[in-house]
Amino acid sequence: MEVRVKILYTSLCHTDVYFWEAKGQTPVFPRIFGHEAGGIVESVGEGVTDLAPGDHVLPVFTGECKECAHCKSEESNMCDLLRINTDRGVMINDGKTRFSINGKPIYHFVGTSTFSEYTVIHVGCLAKINPAASLDKVCVLSCGISTGFGATVNVAKPAKGSTVAIFGLGAVGLAAAEGARVSGASRIIGVDLNPNRFEEAKKFGCTEFVNPLEHKKPVQEVLAEMTNGGVDRSVECTGNIKAMISAFECVHDGWGVAVLVGVPHKDAEFKTHPMNLLNERTLKGTFFGNYKPRSDLPLVVEKYMNKELELEKFITHSVSFAEINKAFDLMLKGEGLRCIIRMED
Amino acid sequence: MEVRVKILYTSLCHTDVYFWEAKGQTPVFPRIFGHEAGGIVESVGEGVTDLAPGDHVLPVFTGECKECAHCKSEESNMCDLLRINTDRGVMINDGKTRFSINGKPIYHFVGTSTFSEYTVIHVGCLAKINPAASLDKVCVLSCGISTGFGATVNVAKPAKGSTVAIFGLGAVGLAAAEGARVSGASRIIGVDLNPNRFEEAKKFGCTEFVNPLEHKKPVQEVLAEMTNGGVDRSVECTGNIKAMISAFECVHDGWGVAVLVGVPHKDAEFKTHPMNLLNERTLKGTFFGNYKPRSDLPLVVEKYMNKELELEKFITHSVSFAEINKAFDLMLKGEGLRCIIRMED
Repeated sequence: MEVRVKILYTSLCHTDVYFWEAKGQTPVFPRIFGHEAGGIVESVGEGVTDLAPGDHVLPVFTGECKECAHCKSEESNMCDLLRINTDRGVMINDGKTRFSINGKPIYHFVGTSTFSEYTVIHVGCLAKINPAASLDKVCVLSCGISTGFGATVNVAKPAKGSTVAIFGLGAVGLAAAEGARVSGASRIIGVDLNPNRFEEAKKFGCTEFVNPLEHKKPVQEVLAEMTNGGVDRSVECTGNIKAMISAFECVHDGWGVAVLVGVPHKDAEFKTHPMNLLNERTLKGTFFGNYKPRSDLPLVVEKYMNKELELEKFITHSVSFAEINKAFDLMLKGEGLRCIIRMED
Repeated sequence: MEVRVKILYTSLCHTDVYFWEAKGQTPVFPRIFGHEAGGIVESVGEGVTDLAPGDHVLPVFTGECKECAHCKSEESNMCDLLRINTDRGVMINDGKTRFSINGKPIYHFVGTSTFSEYTVIHVGCLAKINPAASLDKVCVLSCGISTGFGATVNVAKPAKGSTVAIFGLGAVGLAAAEGARVSGASRIIGVDLNPNRFEEAKKFGCTEFVNPLEHKKPVQEVLAEMTNGGVDRSVECTGNIKAMISAFECVHDGWGVAVLVGVPHKDAEFKTHPMNLLNERTLKGTFFGNYKPRSDLPLVVEKYMNKELELEKFITHSVSFAEINKAFDLMLKGEGLRCIIRMED
């Protein structure tokens, strides 16, 4: 059930940097990072019937076995077999790696390891896409952009004309804003501690901006005042627990829906007064924008092909594989959104 | 916009007892309690066009003005004008009461005050129902039964064949179980500290029973073990904050939905690890089962008429108005579910 993929383009996501820094973790070492990418199938192993050499694919850090209760549920994408596992550095079939150096194993990362000219991936973690789609663009759909976009269009589902607050204007948050724009929201309020992000955010549909540091009252109260009682939908993309609580409490009673995307600190605790819920608010979390990797990602690629979803504006830099450290530098400095790494240069 | 209603049947709900006891409250005194009832319009005031003398009505403690943002939203029933207000003892039109004794005002309770042969109610708090429906049965739809039933059918929306946990097997919880039964749930797990309630709960579709006091581990873990990872839906009807948290944490990741109905202590705090949300669980609160009183309650009465919803089993006692204290005694002792008070006896 394994596929060897020639990676053509990969991009750097915060998750790579987080595990590369290995703060407070027991790192799996040595391993090959990288999980946002686009490539072409080079060869397929035993049992693979869905893919053939030459197919264009997006590797995904979480999978879809199509057999488990989650895959069979219309509502879940949290596959029992292939759900993200950041500690497992081996293939699930035999518990071994497909990379080695001088006979010693080099471990995998989230089943993808795309910072490599060739990589081996379980077929359940590969989305077969339209070969006409430019891999140097759609590669960003492997992770962050789909996560944010899906959080809005699949989970928050804002109605046309509604008001949406987006917490955190990094790539994921801007993708969530893009989802609100595509859904026809009339007000998209970006919330971020960094006011430099607002200009960029306008390209993604943000119409207003709130910097919590500029207000004495909690940002949920600021938003409620701006919107006659609360926003219709909010999407939280920072993972900061205070922002998560604000994102919930800023939605309108009666119909407001808050969607949590950002991954919090392991000791974080979500706290709120239960009356905030009883007043008919909804709180939901999402993982990978509720997309099933194999079933749904090809359709997101089609949205890009139809010019409904604009990917170019997420891609701010491009480097050759030899210059990959530049991509890390840019992310550490908080510059740009996505840096494409060209494997063949 | 006021209507004088001849009350024929009323029943006693915990909320009446809670405000009658007036623990920790500044009571409005003297006032007439009662908010679950059925009656007939005696006369209508200026501006009332929807009702005429002779119409059969159910008074409701919360209203539907049909003009505000909530009433216009398909998702909300939390009318801005007529939302429940337990402190207001007067009519909204002129801030005065319609009851008096020796020239001194007697205050209203939640706009209904049905422990009275005649009462005056805002037209927005009256549901006009099928006159063929027995008022001594459908009067229980004014509050608790609709609250629990609606929490399941309108908010939790369990699919046929699914597993539902109900926290608290009082009248509201049993109505929530009835909603699960009507929805075709195949397993309905009742959770209560009082094991005597299970026998009764079987009539409402409960198939299993868990007493948290009989387990060393948290009840959410007990439920997860019983259900291969969690229930599909849970409905919390106690208002106990620990039960609220358990009700949320016992739903399955990927698709589980927890619905909060019970009203908590004012200082209660809902706490959970945000990963419980990010694993694609949904947490929602509801008020009056998300029913819009005027638009939706007549349809719930029709469900009773069609024998889809069984109301008889909620009615365990009946007394004359002169014996109303017996109804209070039964509720204080926790005996029975609903006691109908016959006004004309």
